Amino acid sequence: MTPLSPTPRSTITRKKDRGRSDRADLYAVLDEGLVCHLGLVLNGSPLVLPTGYGRDGDTLYLHGSTGSPSMRAAAPEVDVCVTVTLVDAVVYARSINDHSMNYRSAVVHGRARQLSGDEKWHGLHVLTDHLAPGSWEHARDVNAKEFAAVSVLALDLAEASVKVRDVGVVDEPSDVEADAAWAGVLPVRTSFGPPETDPECSVPVPAHVSARVGPSTKLPR
Amino acid sequence: MTPLSPTPRSTITRKKDRGRSDRADLYAVLDEGLVCHLGLVLNGSPLVLPTGYGRDGDTLYLHGSTGSPSMRAAAPEVDVCVTVTLVDAVVYARSINDHSMNYRSAVVHGRARQLSGDEKWHGLHVLTDHLAPGSWEHARDVNAKEFAAVSVLALDLAEASVKVRDVGVVDEPSDVEADAAWAGVLPVRTSFGPPETDPECSVPVPAHVSARVGPSTKLPR
Repeated sequence: MTPLSPTPRSTITRKKDRGRSDRADLYAVLDEGLVCHLGLVLNGSPLVLPTGYGRDGDTLYLHGSTGSPSMRAAAPEVDVCVTVTLVDAVVYARSINDHSMNYRSAVVHGRARQLSGDEKWHGLHVLTDHLAPGSWEHARDVNAKEFAAVSVLALDLAEASVKVRDVGVVDEPSDVEADAAWAGVLPVRTSFGPPETDPECSVPVPAHVSARVGPSTKLPR
Repeated sequence: MTPLSPTPRSTITRKKDRGRSDRADLYAVLDEGLVCHLGLVLNGSPLVLPTGYGRDGDTLYLHGSTGSPSMRAAAPEVDVCVTVTLVDAVVYARSINDHSMNYRSAVVHGRARQLSGDEKWHGLHVLTDHLAPGSWEHARDVNAKEFAAVSVLALDLAEASVKVRDVGVVDEPSDVEADAAWAGVLPVRTSFGPPETDPECSVPVPAHVSARVGPSTKLPR
């Protein structure tokens, strides 16, 4: 895998020690998130919308129908910034100023392009596998009318940065010595609860759904 | 409370039935989130960064040091879009096309301004109360040097929209009748795990920290 080579836009300018240049770190953040925040410029103003996504290799697929008027206005290509953030903990320091969060975030810049034909089918497959692994094989296929109505965007993972804070409390030595306030990490846990079957459905919960349930802190969020 | 009055920028154009015009819905989303995604335009390109925030009345406070070169370039005021998203469930439909997510999202547009003096102190207090309620009273105060180094932005909650999807599966009648695939909702739960005290700290875990731990699905994320 090629490392992440910063461009001026993807160069981390603050808390540089939290930057990661390994492409595997980028993949890990993108693969664990459940929604991304898609940023674009509309009439000169920034617009940030949550949307579903999925990754295959070095391509990120996005549900392009989110904010569709804006996307259509900018089609076939639009300059976007896609950010995925995983919050892992609240960091309580002995001083207010050193309070922090543990997190992992990925920021991807580029021009998203509207997909059609086979590429769009593949994008839908990737998006489905990300949101609901197993559903592509289990649920009723997308028909021609549905396929025409949906919009899928693709974005190359060429220009991206990753930031991670995963250490404990970092306080001033004088605060550590004073030992006058509690310091520690409060983990944030995200998991899937028990599935709730639709009242009109008689099909039992399939394994690809029940397998996601559990107390893990490493499940998609 | 005044309802949310849409401007062209904050008018929901897609899935309008998910729009909410009650200001209490806006407050609820903002108060439950842990990070926001701050969007701005830098050299003509969108930039979306995760950052801490807090709300007091109709003012949103933001940690302005995130992406500080960009914020400094645009100071004292910068056009921003701030989005907070809470993911509540993955919705498995009988058809691929009707798969969805339950979520609550708030999108705020406006010009963020750099704070100073008493307003900045108040903003720090609000930011601290949001991230770590109780810490403002418990931990060591911000000193003059720290105060000078930190940056706090304020954004009025004047132009905002809220979207909520909180229903079950919505499938085509023919798919419901076929009853050929599982349909249901897989809840996403976010909670705080047990606090991990810093090895060099002898202060016991205070109540304002331990009170956050629990299996609730309604804790900040």
